[in-house]
Amino acid sequence: MRSLPGFRDFFPSDCARRNYITDTWRRTARTFGFLEYDGPTLESLDLYRKKNSGGEILGQLFSFTDKGDREVALRPEMTPTLARMLIAGERNFRKPIKWFSIAPFFRYEKQQSGRLREFLQLNCDLIGDASPAADAEIIALLIETLRAFGLSAEDVVVRVSDRRAWTDFLASCGVVEEVAREVLAVIDKLEREPREVMESKLAAFDLRLTDMEEFMTSARPDFFTKLQADLGARGLGDFCELDLRIVRGLAYYTGTVFEVFDRRRGRRAIAGGGRFDRLLSDLSGNKTNLPAIGFGIGDVVLADLLADIPAAKSQMDSSVAERLACEIFVIIADESRRAEALGVVRLLRTAGRRVDFSLTADKVARQFKDADASGAPLAVIIGEEWPVVKIKDLKARSEFSLEQTALADWAANLQTPAP
Amino acid sequence: MRSLPGFRDFFPSDCARRNYITDTWRRTARTFGFLEYDGPTLESLDLYRKKNSGGEILGQLFSFTDKGDREVALRPEMTPTLARMLIAGERNFRKPIKWFSIAPFFRYEKQQSGRLREFLQLNCDLIGDASPAADAEIIALLIETLRAFGLSAEDVVVRVSDRRAWTDFLASCGVVEEVAREVLAVIDKLEREPREVMESKLAAFDLRLTDMEEFMTSARPDFFTKLQADLGARGLGDFCELDLRIVRGLAYYTGTVFEVFDRRRGRRAIAGGGRFDRLLSDLSGNKTNLPAIGFGIGDVVLADLLADIPAAKSQMDSSVAERLACEIFVIIADESRRAEALGVVRLLRTAGRRVDFSLTADKVARQFKDADASGAPLAVIIGEEWPVVKIKDLKARSEFSLEQTALADWAANLQTPAP
Repeated sequence: MRSLPGFRDFFPSDCARRNYITDTWRRTARTFGFLEYDGPTLESLDLYRKKNSGGEILGQLFSFTDKGDREVALRPEMTPTLARMLIAGERNFRKPIKWFSIAPFFRYEKQQSGRLREFLQLNCDLIGDASPAADAEIIALLIETLRAFGLSAEDVVVRVSDRRAWTDFLASCGVVEEVAREVLAVIDKLEREPREVMESKLAAFDLRLTDMEEFMTSARPDFFTKLQADLGARGLGDFCELDLRIVRGLAYYTGTVFEVFDRRRGRRAIAGGGRFDRLLSDLSGNKTNLPAIGFGIGDVVLADLLADIPAAKSQMDSSVAERLACEIFVIIADESRRAEALGVVRLLRTAGRRVDFSLTADKVARQFKDADASGAPLAVIIGEEWPVVKIKDLKARSEFSLEQTALADWAANLQTPAP
Repeated sequence: MRSLPGFRDFFPSDCARRNYITDTWRRTARTFGFLEYDGPTLESLDLYRKKNSGGEILGQLFSFTDKGDREVALRPEMTPTLARMLIAGERNFRKPIKWFSIAPFFRYEKQQSGRLREFLQLNCDLIGDASPAADAEIIALLIETLRAFGLSAEDVVVRVSDRRAWTDFLASCGVVEEVAREVLAVIDKLEREPREVMESKLAAFDLRLTDMEEFMTSARPDFFTKLQADLGARGLGDFCELDLRIVRGLAYYTGTVFEVFDRRRGRRAIAGGGRFDRLLSDLSGNKTNLPAIGFGIGDVVLADLLADIPAAKSQMDSSVAERLACEIFVIIADESRRAEALGVVRLLRTAGRRVDFSLTADKVARQFKDADASGAPLAVIIGEEWPVVKIKDLKARSEFSLEQTALADWAANLQTPAP
């Protein structure tokens, strides 16, 4: 039996790669002072019906009726849960609120490369600050997250745009705000549809493609200058470019929007986000009124990208290897000393070391083979010399002896790379 | 809007407590040389129908039909997924296989204390070794997991039993193996039902309660002596007691079974596990034939226990506080130095520190208030003295000056407790 299509089994090497990604996400978000939160895997279906998500996501829900006759859905994205939690609890937190979460999401997608039905996403949001400095802080976190995987400004680019600049421009063309949303949904498809199709779609709104293109190439919204100055002061200016073709599909975005792309290959966005200054107010019936900006990045497209870029791949591979290896293998050279060996195993583990040993009596040569297979760089050998033990470096093939009483100190001070 | 009944929102302090538990689980399992794996959240309903789980779990499934007309279920426990993965992939792994996972599970339970509809569980399994040494290794890991939370042998006890000893004894009373399963289901309720009820239930099998009690108090199965010797050599003997009243509800257990209890209060089991030497063979139609032993421990009952025991609670609370705090707050005393301050923020974060600052211009006194609220023990003050900065210990109220060029080294060598 296999897992369901679009769902993954994580054997240890897969799980080590997944954890490398989620640990790197978590570590980076924490350096920015973001606090981790989470919500339930299952939510009321109503949470997604209330206009929040785009129509595409609504059509992909894993939804059903539970044993208590409730209409429920596996969460397809984090923002509605975040909004629900903020409306309930934001009064208890100082502003700006800087929160992140790492969680699985579920969408019934057609099977295609980079798309699964269960995937992980890092979501980072900054709530209660509408300034360009907040935009810069969230985009800097996105860039540092990419950098933490060994990606450089030659590998990836954050393309930044502004839906306000678009709605202002469209207003100047006579398009009212409600209709502007529909026009932006057309613009969102710009790079995926032929010119003639775009022209005829825009004609339905009395708009000309050439006017749109003129706007996209010449407009230089004020917010972008401020954003670039802030990112420049952080040494991250090279990662960011203005690109008004980006408008984002989700209905709830109001201002700054951005997507990350692989500079070399034209694949789909690696991450994306933007401002949703009206979502909390809309959802709470005006009771909670806080501006917000955030982004999401998924594990599937990211892992594909990391595998393609040699520096990033080698960093990932060595972290995975480290996660799969033991640190110390205890070899019981004299079976009559098994009880003492168990005591040593326990002492080394209590010192925080990853330790393995043969559960049953075995030839010393076979135990050394098991030690090699475990990936441990060190062996502690318990034999006739007890209470003196031998410590062997399995790569350098060097060894030295140590009193059993000195083992705890030795183990505590070992220099081994953290995974 | 609230989360669904039995489902949790994890605000940052809840999430910090959850992560304290999962990080402690992960760290301990890794010291035992166990490797992490995971499976999908959603599985084919068939995986649970095939006799694996007990009837109780089958009745509590969150199951539905997906958009592709598949009968699916949110996973209610890990063992069926593990068995599925092992049958598919065990050939690629050296034996014994030592794996753990940390994942959410779903059961439509009646609402009551310690029971939720979504909960987390650590599952640890040792596959391919039927020896008492394997029993000892897995039970030692369970004990060390409890110890890692600050629990002692005065707080918790692992009660160990053996379903083989029971089936042997019942055979001597004339009960065949298929019927023995039903008798054990009765024995499982021993502590929850009145004496008369037990007596009449056993009478249906031609058995007397007093005979059962005599067996439970006098039998001393051989495996337990070996188990105690092994645990004793590890200094963990005090945590473990023989208790033949333990038989475990799940149908797939074959030999050693065990449960962890709070010594002071008679609440439900905190953790449980046992041998399932025939499950892989049964599920694979005899293609995969590996003995196995494992345990599961959930986060809900464990968190309740930790909150009740002062030493464990204080350890948990200080880890939670540490996880919620920043390490350094950067104070911009001279707003014209904001660009330089952003550079410092970036440098400190790149050194791995958790750093926050005011996104917009603010009075120095208010920035110090924000620094206090952030929990940061240290402030770095950027002002007129630039490129010299002041570093202030916010608790000791002491301060010193540092050249900006020396900041990276200072940050890298800071001694702060790891969460």
